[in-house]
Amino acid sequence: MRDLEIAGFLRERGILGGEISVSEIGDGNINYIFRARNGAGESVIVKYADELLRSSGRPLSVERARIEARALAICGELAGAHVPAVFCFDEVRRLIVMEDLADFENLRHGLLARKIYPTLAADLAAYLANTLIRTSDCILDGEYKKALVKEFINPEMCLISEKLIFTDPFTNFYNTNIPLEENREFYDEQLYGDIPLRLEAAKLTADFKTRAQALLHGDLHTGSVFAKPGATKIIDPEFAFFGPIGFDAGNIIANLIFAKINAYLTMAQNPEKTAFIAYMDNTIQNLIDGFYDIGIQILENEATDPMARTPGFARWYMGGIMADIAGMAGMELIRRTIGDAKVADINGIADIKTRARAERICILIGKKLILGRNLDILQEEDYGKYL
Amino acid sequence: MRDLEIAGFLRERGILGGEISVSEIGDGNINYIFRARNGAGESVIVKYADELLRSSGRPLSVERARIEARALAICGELAGAHVPAVFCFDEVRRLIVMEDLADFENLRHGLLARKIYPTLAADLAAYLANTLIRTSDCILDGEYKKALVKEFINPEMCLISEKLIFTDPFTNFYNTNIPLEENREFYDEQLYGDIPLRLEAAKLTADFKTRAQALLHGDLHTGSVFAKPGATKIIDPEFAFFGPIGFDAGNIIANLIFAKINAYLTMAQNPEKTAFIAYMDNTIQNLIDGFYDIGIQILENEATDPMARTPGFARWYMGGIMADIAGMAGMELIRRTIGDAKVADINGIADIKTRARAERICILIGKKLILGRNLDILQEEDYGKYL
Repeated sequence: MRDLEIAGFLRERGILGGEISVSEIGDGNINYIFRARNGAGESVIVKYADELLRSSGRPLSVERARIEARALAICGELAGAHVPAVFCFDEVRRLIVMEDLADFENLRHGLLARKIYPTLAADLAAYLANTLIRTSDCILDGEYKKALVKEFINPEMCLISEKLIFTDPFTNFYNTNIPLEENREFYDEQLYGDIPLRLEAAKLTADFKTRAQALLHGDLHTGSVFAKPGATKIIDPEFAFFGPIGFDAGNIIANLIFAKINAYLTMAQNPEKTAFIAYMDNTIQNLIDGFYDIGIQILENEATDPMARTPGFARWYMGGIMADIAGMAGMELIRRTIGDAKVADINGIADIKTRARAERICILIGKKLILGRNLDILQEEDYGKYL
Repeated sequence: MRDLEIAGFLRERGILGGEISVSEIGDGNINYIFRARNGAGESVIVKYADELLRSSGRPLSVERARIEARALAICGELAGAHVPAVFCFDEVRRLIVMEDLADFENLRHGLLARKIYPTLAADLAAYLANTLIRTSDCILDGEYKKALVKEFINPEMCLISEKLIFTDPFTNFYNTNIPLEENREFYDEQLYGDIPLRLEAAKLTADFKTRAQALLHGDLHTGSVFAKPGATKIIDPEFAFFGPIGFDAGNIIANLIFAKINAYLTMAQNPEKTAFIAYMDNTIQNLIDGFYDIGIQILENEATDPMARTPGFARWYMGGIMADIAGMAGMELIRRTIGDAKVADINGIADIKTRARAERICILIGKKLILGRNLDILQEEDYGKYL
């Protein structure tokens, strides 16, 4: 997809007028991302899903573009403040044209630069509760929900998650792990050798594969979040499918933990560090509490399913999700550490000994979350005690 | 669909030759069932799915014919001995032509006539384990399973179950219950008034709506089973969809309990009664044990998912299913009693006081199964103690 084609497309669709300049701005593995501007200073983002992966040239179903456009539309209806506006989706060309978040920053980069986003926890909690609880059977009409489940069957993307998140960290069955040399022995003992852990992970795997609880984002790490002080937008739902709610919330919490561990291990001891760690702790806790509270509120006030209105149901339902979140956060902490999809928060730590220590902390917290299914440990945890 | 059209269709497709006579043999609510014979003594069954319900003339999606034909084909591959052979499915005409089970008997009628089927428990256990465990994620290829889930999204039929089984028995929200006058007060107190029960039922409801665990029959009562001594065939999977495994197994067990309660309350005290009750108890227990054992065997020897091969996984997985079976059996016991889809085992008891007592026993056992999620109570239960 060349720049001229994109400019022509935008003009033809009446999205941008005047002289249009296009530049590729993305460096992701999967798709091509362009920014198109005109002389009047207007700009949009164009996302192009090629049949071949941008990084490796390996083929990947372009169904993902349809899934992403539909998920953005639905989440836009449910949580419009936290999703970029979509101006156009062309299914034949696999082009999504959306709002340019030029003054936002990728949240992973922002947190690594120790930026503070005061509304981040509240925004993420609102996004999660509104997109997830509102696409569950408690709220959606049964026929519409079943039609959506069908539309969002997303085999190719789900199989990627099933391999990389739910299988290889414990078995290396598909041989995709990339363990740090310094931690090889640690991984042999703590992951491959821990059968009780693998059994708990297998239960979460079964859940991921079977439970069509709500429309998930499916890949909600901090790189899928764009933030600026006072505003938060979630992008890239190409892994969307109906799955267990705890997966999305667990993923984002795990990625906030990565940012905290990075700060914990790499910042010099000074008031800025203390403040930033406190900010991260508050953000994680407020996100958890906020999600729970909004979830309860939606269920208690808006459940359309008569059985979901039974006294005690909302608390049972949200309680189960909180346990799932703990387990799924643990899965993300582990897979991003030993697996091939690393995060800059950990993998970018220059000092190899510190990086190895960071990895071990991620694994040990992840294990504790998977084995205990309890988010409370995040409040109590002194990460330093592990080593 | 007139007899002549059916005869012409069978001839044109080369299924039956010679002089063909057709007669309607079914008296179900939903579809039309015909038997077609020729002079050579060959016969087949033809099932016709009209756009309008046979009983009420109300419209119902003809998708059910495609679903049933596909489910029969898949279950035929997995448990051929227990499924009628399908000779032809015509999607445009919505005709399924299948093996005539002329020398078999509807199991509900057979058990009400106190017939003994020595292989019934083993046959049902094998059918359940082979169709259910083998269509779970533990065994099926992930991509194929997701394609099947999509193909078997069955909104109209699932919504019937969600209303009649999972909502109305506890709420009468859709106003479909038909309570026996004598038991009105009992139902008010024991069903509508029992909030802890409704909460447990709501959990099972959530599970039914979300958990795409395996390809279910979806309506596995004793009227969907045809039996003769030494052989058992399961028909009518038009409610098929991917749901929780415990639903199918729980349904058939509940319906065996109905047959036992009928015998318990209506047979004169004599050795035949003692023998028949013992036969029913053994059948129920052997079905439960047999299903568990075959399930474990399949999982331990044939699981293709590496995580499902984790030591301890098979027992955890089957253990969860056994708890689900208890809950789902309880749901079926209750809905068939208070709901509009009655069973002859209970509703056919002529003496109204005895029928009222039978209903109360069904409800109380159902509640115990739902609240305790433990099948062991079926072994201990002296049904007489309830009243």
